[in-house]
Amino acid sequence: MASIFTQIINEEIPGYKIYEDDYVCAFLDINPIKKGHVLVVPKVEVDQFFDIEEKMFDHMMHRVRYIAQVMRAQLKCERVCVFIEGFGIPHAHVHLVPANTPGDFDKSNVYKASTEELEEVQRLLQS
Amino acid sequence: MASIFTQIINEEIPGYKIYEDDYVCAFLDINPIKKGHVLVVPKVEVDQFFDIEEKMFDHMMHRVRYIAQVMRAQLKCERVCVFIEGFGIPHAHVHLVPANTPGDFDKSNVYKASTEELEEVQRLLQS
Repeated sequence: MASIFTQIINEEIPGYKIYEDDYVCAFLDINPIKKGHVLVVPKVEVDQFFDIEEKMFDHMMHRVRYIAQVMRAQLKCERVCVFIEGFGIPHAHVHLVPANTPGDFDKSNVYKASTEELEEVQRLLQS
Repeated sequence: MASIFTQIINEEIPGYKIYEDDYVCAFLDINPIKKGHVLVVPKVEVDQFFDIEEKMFDHMMHRVRYIAQVMRAQLKCERVCVFIEGFGIPHAHVHLVPANTPGDFDKSNVYKASTEELEEVQRLLQS
């Protein structure tokens, strides 16, 4: 069965996409640790991030860098923090979290974002 | 003044290097969250990871990928987790943490590693 990320990419379930090309998709985490929390996902289902084939890995990291720069500008945060773990869903994904203080990058802050918040962030990051 | 990472790279203060080339250096975190915790650092002092110049960024991520693969093989961990924050030291660095369970990737687990532990891990990762 397709992973939940593939289902979001294929628009079989709702999501808040902010970037997409032939190989990579980025959308909002609906359970963010900070407003503006983004997931960047390769379209191919690979479990572990470091098992992504080299050319795809390069492309994905270019897109991660670009999206982080857009986030910093549009969300007016001091920096964009990163984490990659992947115990939950066997489809590699990079978490990008806008942060102004170390406390903004704390996984225990997770919450369920409102539709209004997600739509607001999507508008900012798509523009 | 040179950052603490530059001082480790220049061997002005002690460190446990496991990889080095003209542009990038990797060494053990002496305050790991899990045995085998590695830092990968560009030799040029750039504060924020996403401000690293593109060609250098590509090279660094290639080395990060390679080092993570060596870690997984040599430390016999299920996966290598990643975090990048950078509030503490204004010299970009990528944390690589060997993990078998989500609990292995918990920043509150930080401890001071013994010299014996650091030397053992260094031997494994240099080989």
